[in-house]
Amino acid sequence: MAKKDWKSKAKALKAELKGHRSESKALPAETPTKKPKIVSPLAPSQFPKLPLIAGVEFAAVEAGVRYQNRKDVMLVRLAPGTAVAGAFTRSTTRSGCVRDCQQKLSMSVPRNAGAAIIVNSGNSNAFTGKVGDKAVAEVTGSVAAALGLLPSRVFSSSTGVIGEPLPFERITAKVPELAAALREDAIEMAAHAMMTTDTFPKGAMATVQGDGGVIQIAGIAKGSGMIAPDMATMLVYIFTDAKMTATTLQKMVSRNMDATFNSITVDSDTSTSDTLLVAATGLSEAAPVVGSVAKEFEAALRSVMTDLAHQVIRDGEGATKFVEIRVSGAADAADAQRVAMAVANSPLVKTAIAGQDPNWGRIVAAIGKSGAMADRDRLTIKFGDIVVAKNGWRNPSYKEEDGATYMLQSDLVISIDMGLGRAKRSVWTCDLTNRYVEINADYRS
Amino acid sequence: MAKKDWKSKAKALKAELKGHRSESKALPAETPTKKPKIVSPLAPSQFPKLPLIAGVEFAAVEAGVRYQNRKDVMLVRLAPGTAVAGAFTRSTTRSGCVRDCQQKLSMSVPRNAGAAIIVNSGNSNAFTGKVGDKAVAEVTGSVAAALGLLPSRVFSSSTGVIGEPLPFERITAKVPELAAALREDAIEMAAHAMMTTDTFPKGAMATVQGDGGVIQIAGIAKGSGMIAPDMATMLVYIFTDAKMTATTLQKMVSRNMDATFNSITVDSDTSTSDTLLVAATGLSEAAPVVGSVAKEFEAALRSVMTDLAHQVIRDGEGATKFVEIRVSGAADAADAQRVAMAVANSPLVKTAIAGQDPNWGRIVAAIGKSGAMADRDRLTIKFGDIVVAKNGWRNPSYKEEDGATYMLQSDLVISIDMGLGRAKRSVWTCDLTNRYVEINADYRS
Repeated sequence: MAKKDWKSKAKALKAELKGHRSESKALPAETPTKKPKIVSPLAPSQFPKLPLIAGVEFAAVEAGVRYQNRKDVMLVRLAPGTAVAGAFTRSTTRSGCVRDCQQKLSMSVPRNAGAAIIVNSGNSNAFTGKVGDKAVAEVTGSVAAALGLLPSRVFSSSTGVIGEPLPFERITAKVPELAAALREDAIEMAAHAMMTTDTFPKGAMATVQGDGGVIQIAGIAKGSGMIAPDMATMLVYIFTDAKMTATTLQKMVSRNMDATFNSITVDSDTSTSDTLLVAATGLSEAAPVVGSVAKEFEAALRSVMTDLAHQVIRDGEGATKFVEIRVSGAADAADAQRVAMAVANSPLVKTAIAGQDPNWGRIVAAIGKSGAMADRDRLTIKFGDIVVAKNGWRNPSYKEEDGATYMLQSDLVISIDMGLGRAKRSVWTCDLTNRYVEINADYRS
Repeated sequence: MAKKDWKSKAKALKAELKGHRSESKALPAETPTKKPKIVSPLAPSQFPKLPLIAGVEFAAVEAGVRYQNRKDVMLVRLAPGTAVAGAFTRSTTRSGCVRDCQQKLSMSVPRNAGAAIIVNSGNSNAFTGKVGDKAVAEVTGSVAAALGLLPSRVFSSSTGVIGEPLPFERITAKVPELAAALREDAIEMAAHAMMTTDTFPKGAMATVQGDGGVIQIAGIAKGSGMIAPDMATMLVYIFTDAKMTATTLQKMVSRNMDATFNSITVDSDTSTSDTLLVAATGLSEAAPVVGSVAKEFEAALRSVMTDLAHQVIRDGEGATKFVEIRVSGAADAADAQRVAMAVANSPLVKTAIAGQDPNWGRIVAAIGKSGAMADRDRLTIKFGDIVVAKNGWRNPSYKEEDGATYMLQSDLVISIDMGLGRAKRSVWTCDLTNRYVEINADYRS
């Protein structure tokens, strides 16, 4: 399909589907395949109304990779000329899919090549050796054949159990069905198909006024455990109709990773499969993204990345609290990160939060173990606006009941000022509850 | 009291108390003050029969620092001429007690000075600012006055809640009572008095044949949460009648820390209060420890340190499994430690163990996030003697039911061979259970 056809098709679809998403529950293609039994108490009230992105189509099927009676494979087709950028886990035991994506993103792309993304849940195809590499080649090759794409432009992700061979033929058998079902308005279904222990599908959007037209951004994510800096079992796909090169897009993604996806942690565990792919189809009516529009676009992209990252924490396994750890006054940036992550990952801090206990002593202990430069007598610790500790001691006017009342909220901000320098860092985490243990002690059985 | 008097008194006591400890339950001084309601399933069947150490006396009292109806302060008197060595938390927010011990150990010691150790549970006196420093001076000064010691030879530890001022006057008020109650056969009572969330008191012993007599070593420890490398809320006191200088003793302690107390982790949290003190009274009939006896003594000391470290893990909060993570074939020593600790601290690995799930995929993920050099295709993973994964893939002859059966045991060995070099490291940890969360979400209320 030529670029022009995509564009006119997109316009027609937009007109046709205007105001359509509010009825989406009535559409079979939009109906979630299986309602999770327990939904995180921190979940948004509903999946957001995402804009259609010209040149991006979705489909999902039941392939029975591991789960039964639910959609578990999703496919995205991207229009010819789409620029793709990405970011991945740094795990040394990362999966074959991740290595394959990284390799493909480093290759030069023929002009006007289309692209696709295929994702399965239930099996991560990680630590499956050469057999796993073959599975990636089979799945992506099958999509390339069905959609008439270069195999080097088909990206894949797998999420779920590690170390078990992926029954790839269950996926390849469904590729024709997926190809036939592609439609622009099925992004929510795609978000559902990639869920594992997630309790809700995650979506976010932003709009930018470009030069000569509006630029849309829509993203989906999955992930609820094994979330840690350097990403985690987190799959994120963000789509935009902006006109821009892959190089520019990659720079924007890379610049914003640290403050977004690399600043969240559920359990300090890093996955072998984390993948972020961002695709820009260039089919917006707006002119190519440059100058002040580029700045606004980058801010909007960052807001979508932040929103999805926070939703992953809001679906943290067993989470009942969404917590920002806000560090300031650190000697340098590395120290700010060390302190923020040490506090965010401390099981003792996280269990205290679960118990709604304003146990700031455990925060002091976590700061102390972080390895960052610290001076007891310069530390200030706050719960929200409540100054709990300062000058190396409990704030004399702090009342335990004020701290206890604050801890009852579901969204918490714990601020730590080191009193040493000007470096800052915020990270987001959740509490550690019995439910986390239950979920993870029982994952495979 | 002169050294000679101590020696003869010790001999007399030894004769008097020979065979005495088996009846110890009948002695009020030996009776545990309060039975914990739940005892770790990994606890030893009983407190070991520890030898009396010539020149070491113990006492414990109810001071009501925080806990009621149980002994919460213990005192140890060490004979004149006792050599003392130590190791401490490296936390930058370490407590006033720890700083005070470190300073005192760095001072030169007058010939034949005696020494003492005073420990309270219930309040760690950490992050209590200048008021906390004053509390340390009051407590140690009061002991020095009561026992006729130099204040610089009185060491103290506090364990419990962080950040609350220590009501030191409750302790100093009891010092005369403690001084009057000192006796050689009360080590088990001392072990009880320093317990916090511990479910059993921890003791270990060893005997070395010296030149001209037997050398005895006896140690006690407390600790069950906030246990991590670089020590934790762990207090350990080891006593011996060996004749040796403080310098030699310190070297032996320092050489053996990494393989013992710095190789255990319950929850990756490091405490502000960890303290190990080792005291050698020199009152054994054996000649000064040198040559081959020194080697044997160091091995015996290490075995006591290892035994106590393992008991702390066996009392890990909520623990139902005692797990050795045995790494070999790492590129270098730092990598071996990184891998071992990454696996031992992984909440996903620890919850899988709690669920008796042989989920080796999570071990692969933890290795991957460790930052150590790793080659998927050279990794070998074993549960006990069962080869689960090798050559970058599941061992074809591995059967899931064999792994599942192995995981039912309470003591587990997970071996990881990196296939890259010759570096090794073993660390010990426990599983992560609901009970851990319950204990720590409810600690202060």
